[in-house]
Amino acid sequence: MTFDEEYRIKLEEVEEIVERYLPREEGYQKTIFSAMNYSVRAGGKRLRPMLMLETYRLFDGRSRVIEPFMAAMEYIHTGSLVHDDLPCMDNDEYRRGKKTTWSVFGDDMGVLAGDALFFYAFETAGKAFDMNVNNNNVGKAMSLLAVKSGVYGMAGGQTVDVEMTGKALRKDQLRFIYELKTGALIEASMMIGAILADASREDIRTVEQIAKRVGLAFQIQDDILDVTSTTEELGKPVHSDEKNAKTTYVTLFGQEQAGIRSGLLLNEAIERLDSLTGENRFLKQLLEYLITRKK
Amino acid sequence: MTFDEEYRIKLEEVEEIVERYLPREEGYQKTIFSAMNYSVRAGGKRLRPMLMLETYRLFDGRSRVIEPFMAAMEYIHTGSLVHDDLPCMDNDEYRRGKKTTWSVFGDDMGVLAGDALFFYAFETAGKAFDMNVNNNNVGKAMSLLAVKSGVYGMAGGQTVDVEMTGKALRKDQLRFIYELKTGALIEASMMIGAILADASREDIRTVEQIAKRVGLAFQIQDDILDVTSTTEELGKPVHSDEKNAKTTYVTLFGQEQAGIRSGLLLNEAIERLDSLTGENRFLKQLLEYLITRKK
Repeated sequence: MTFDEEYRIKLEEVEEIVERYLPREEGYQKTIFSAMNYSVRAGGKRLRPMLMLETYRLFDGRSRVIEPFMAAMEYIHTGSLVHDDLPCMDNDEYRRGKKTTWSVFGDDMGVLAGDALFFYAFETAGKAFDMNVNNNNVGKAMSLLAVKSGVYGMAGGQTVDVEMTGKALRKDQLRFIYELKTGALIEASMMIGAILADASREDIRTVEQIAKRVGLAFQIQDDILDVTSTTEELGKPVHSDEKNAKTTYVTLFGQEQAGIRSGLLLNEAIERLDSLTGENRFLKQLLEYLITRKK
Repeated sequence: MTFDEEYRIKLEEVEEIVERYLPREEGYQKTIFSAMNYSVRAGGKRLRPMLMLETYRLFDGRSRVIEPFMAAMEYIHTGSLVHDDLPCMDNDEYRRGKKTTWSVFGDDMGVLAGDALFFYAFETAGKAFDMNVNNNNVGKAMSLLAVKSGVYGMAGGQTVDVEMTGKALRKDQLRFIYELKTGALIEASMMIGAILADASREDIRTVEQIAKRVGLAFQIQDDILDVTSTTEELGKPVHSDEKNAKTTYVTLFGQEQAGIRSGLLLNEAIERLDSLTGENRFLKQLLEYLITRKK
């Protein structure tokens, strides 16, 4: 089986899990359920839950306890995009060729749909308690989800990103934004996989180091694609960073150096992944794909 | 000691706990920390954490495990007000005589500050794990916090409230909004107090019944005060429901019937509270105060 075939099968499995926990569109608050489901079904790579599942399997996790957390992670990621797109934020009417949540349901429902997805994420993750696994690990995973989504994670990164819009960034500021805005949820995804599989403290630490590198390299690749890809390939406008005068790894270091940095980070991640004992064939290919992807 | 004196002492205790868990305003994401702290420090009755603490004590809870949950509850309540006030929601520039978060920090930071408070609430509640109590109870409390904040709780109620703005409500719709928008967090507060004090399933169920009645009566009293109070007493404009053509218990049933209904709910709550074995003197006075308050 080629990587592409295997990836498609895995993606279907992840999609089914993300879909299964969505609320039924019924009752007085039907509109918010519709807005949530619309947002989640608008698609995406489902990268975070896939990384979570593969890391869980790397440590020989075999229970379904990972599933509510996979869904929860995707709901938080989706909620953050819903808020990012709002008129008072990035004011985007389209994402991946589809109307954004607020442009279908209104600004007020856009705010509430994001909020709803955040709460629903913790509600869904909470279903992992009493699933015949160590509840202490579930608690740890839930706390980590909160920390990495919040002000010391994703939301903290977004704040600095929003605040610095239109201003030139120093290297340390750019790195901070990348590590938090993109990196934190990738770290949380892989670490939660390890925690729920009852990995050792040391192994969880190694997973964190892998995920840090993957997150940063993933974002650098985004910067590179913005200058090297075409709108057709990418499914979104290219050269947008230049137009918006955005500081990126490419504007700061040049395309070649950015590519070298990304490759280096990938190597470091793979090296650490190989130092762990589990079966890592697909996960390794997945990391390579994410960081060398063309769209 | 009069109730007022005792209440002030308890309020100080609650304020100290809510304050203690706030983030330090430092680092790259300083602005979001400032916006969060500004929002929380803008004040309020701290009703929810106080109810949580008193219910915890009713069941003889004696550990500090309740404290992170008290703070978490107030952060969620605050975050929901921050989002409610946004230009694309209620568009309020002032709350309790102070500038609202978005009108100080901008709309974009208003959205992010609400989000940040939500995540920070779960982050804070998560600190209760490994505080030498039953981690299963902490997990239950965290799940309940998510459920009662989300689409089957507060956020669900807000959705219907926003959607029905300017439209006449049926009785069942009004009740749904009150039970979810106001009631759900009051239920969560009292139930989490009981859960963390390791109360029995049956007692937690009784607490839920008490809290349901308190939440509804509290909201009906709000409706009554809007027609009977003065702007000076209330600290916010009165007769606002009439001006906004809002359906309330007073517009649906008349002021007298609304008062009778609220009194009945209070009696039912007190009756159930008396059926529990703990020391309930202050809690009983607190419920009476909340439901017969003049502001």
